[in-house]
Amino acid sequence: MAREIERKFLVDGDDWKDGAEKGVRLKQAYLLGAADRSARVRVFDDSRARITLKFGGSAMSRDEFEYDIPLEDALDMMTHALGSVIDKTRYRVPDGNFVWEVDVYHGDHAGLVVAEVELPNETATPRLPDWLGREVTGDRRYINQALAETGAIPEENG
Amino acid sequence: MAREIERKFLVDGDDWKDGAEKGVRLKQAYLLGAADRSARVRVFDDSRARITLKFGGSAMSRDEFEYDIPLEDALDMMTHALGSVIDKTRYRVPDGNFVWEVDVYHGDHAGLVVAEVELPNETATPRLPDWLGREVTGDRRYINQALAETGAIPEENG
Repeated sequence: MAREIERKFLVDGDDWKDGAEKGVRLKQAYLLGAADRSARVRVFDDSRARITLKFGGSAMSRDEFEYDIPLEDALDMMTHALGSVIDKTRYRVPDGNFVWEVDVYHGDHAGLVVAEVELPNETATPRLPDWLGREVTGDRRYINQALAETGAIPEENG
Repeated sequence: MAREIERKFLVDGDDWKDGAEKGVRLKQAYLLGAADRSARVRVFDDSRARITLKFGGSAMSRDEFEYDIPLEDALDMMTHALGSVIDKTRYRVPDGNFVWEVDVYHGDHAGLVVAEVELPNETATPRLPDWLGREVTGDRRYINQALAETGAIPEENG
């Protein structure tokens, strides 16, 4: 069990690409959801798969359990997706003591680029790179589960 | 992924014990649920643990995915149970070409005894042992998820 604390921002421009490592293609679907919990399945680079259970209502802090599963199971589960299957490429962008994860969305959500950083505690203060736009931590419209449900990017970025 | 087809009955008397193998103590909690899907965690004999995801609305046939997980994760997950944690002992009772599973409930559901048989297809006709009572296949009150939600056995058996 991991305790997940993170901040999330929109991304402004392409300067983040200078520090980015090779991306991983992620396809993910929500299988079960409620206000304070969810079950998700993910496929990485069309070759590995994992399920994740999350509990806890706070946007900045949640209990998370993750397990590797057979790729074939994951593809079967995706036929039971709630809403659309999210398709994005995730890039790691190290910056000082922190690692930003920049998600470039494809398909229904093309045009949306979001950066997240995982923090050791709720008071940690990472340096904020110049390529960050508006902070959206706690904005439920940018949670992947909400993106899957609507099948579109929130209007202000459309 | 397994396709699960089963019939379920109440149990009448103790004659099933003659053919029963050693029981396994099962503690199980529902973590996420909707009409056509659920996520469940189980602990076997306080030593092994497993999560199960089920999809599909038909009472006799569902898609089921099961994975072993660390015991510590399972105990953490049980703090997020929806409703009560179900506590029962499951006995295997072989009968001809079929194996019945008899669940003897404890705690909030003490007094309830249910037998299930898994079938190779929806038209299979297992012999029905004398110790079976009324068939409750498809009766949602006897689904473990419903038992967990109400925290009590259905009234006709109370």
